Amino acid sequence: MNVLNFQREVRSKMSEIRRIGTGARWSDVVIHAGVARWVEVAEDGKSDTTEQVRQVLAQIDTTLAELGTSRERVLQVMIYLADLADAPTLNRLWDFWVVPGQAPSRACVQAGLSGTLKVEMLVMAAVD
Amino acid sequence: MNVLNFQREVRSKMSEIRRIGTGARWSDVVIHAGVARWVEVAEDGKSDTTEQVRQVLAQIDTTLAELGTSRERVLQVMIYLADLADAPTLNRLWDFWVVPGQAPSRACVQAGLSGTLKVEMLVMAAVD
Amino acid sequence: MNVLNFQREVRSKMSEIRRIGTGARWSDVVIHAGVARWVEVAEDGKSDTTEQVRQVLAQIDTTLAELGTSRERVLQVMIYLADLADAPTLNRLWDFWVVPGQAPSRACVQAGLSGTLKVEMLVMAAVD
Repeated sequence: MNVLNFQREVRSKMSEIRRIGTGARWSDVVIHAGVARWVEVAEDGKSDTTEQVRQVLAQIDTTLAELGTSRERVLQVMIYLADLADAPTLNRLWDFWVVPGQAPSRACVQAGLSGTLKVEMLVMAAVD
Repeated sequence: MNVLNFQREVRSKMSEIRRIGTGARWSDVVIHAGVARWVEVAEDGKSDTTEQVRQVLAQIDTTLAELGTSRERVLQVMIYLADLADAPTLNRLWDFWVVPGQAPSRACVQAGLSGTLKVEMLVMAAVD
Repeated sequence: MNVLNFQREVRSKMSEIRRIGTGARWSDVVIHAGVARWVEVAEDGKSDTTEQVRQVLAQIDTTLAELGTSRERVLQVMIYLADLADAPTLNRLWDFWVVPGQAPSRACVQAGLSGTLKVEMLVMAAVD
């Protein structure tokens, strides 16, 4: 590959935006410059906290696989809990989910969530 | 262009930080590595929710134009509502604003906002 | 350096993930593609708001130094206050901390924080 082609490749790789599951309101995942960003809530938003956390983490795994990346390459997770009293429940499942030595940056605060949602996670993962 | 110059160009493009509207407390926009980040609240923070959402989306358009980019290249919007009951009002205007097939990743939670603010959006857009 | 080595170097620089202070639940800092992300809460979470803000800003300085970067290269700070009434206290210390002409993008909302925490900051800084 010559320099000019490489320049084109780097620039196009940098600037390209890839989306998965694009609807009228949001895209399920948006990928740009080697980073994928998405928001995860439990498919069954009426289930209890344990089940919602379990579902969200499983859904993150599914998305990571779809993106060709893995838990080891998650950069940051911003967690919103409807009730901070659920933090121990979250952490029990979370600590088991995290790959030892490869934990992402994480924040967890309480915020108002839609309907009966107990947990919402903003995920950022490297895909490059 | 030779390889060495290209290396310099790529590195300088990567590392440069550009700011717009820098004050003592924050910059209106910060651009780095092809991504612009900014926070938008309504200029008239005393208006009702519909008007605040309308203003915020219009202000995003203005910033996008100033950055030489567009709605199609918005990567993620984190929305804070002072009251989740305003979500239908938000969504009515939001769904009209989104470019079909090019929706960003989006999260929307309820959080306490300053004064009479009803909505606050953190926007991330590609500018490369 | 030839083109092939440079390609390898750029790609490895892009894709490499570096972590600092990795525990079972999170990493203190995660660095990828020239951007470091981390979450800061006061080491003494039982102190008053002034002291917690002071500590958080000092801890950010320590992390910036450890990363070989500086306040001038902070891109965005997302601030969660347990009580928005503490915003004037935050701003007094914040405005003094910000480097004139180099302010980051900033958002500040009220959210529920763990235990006696008064402030939590999500920091993003350029390290390239």
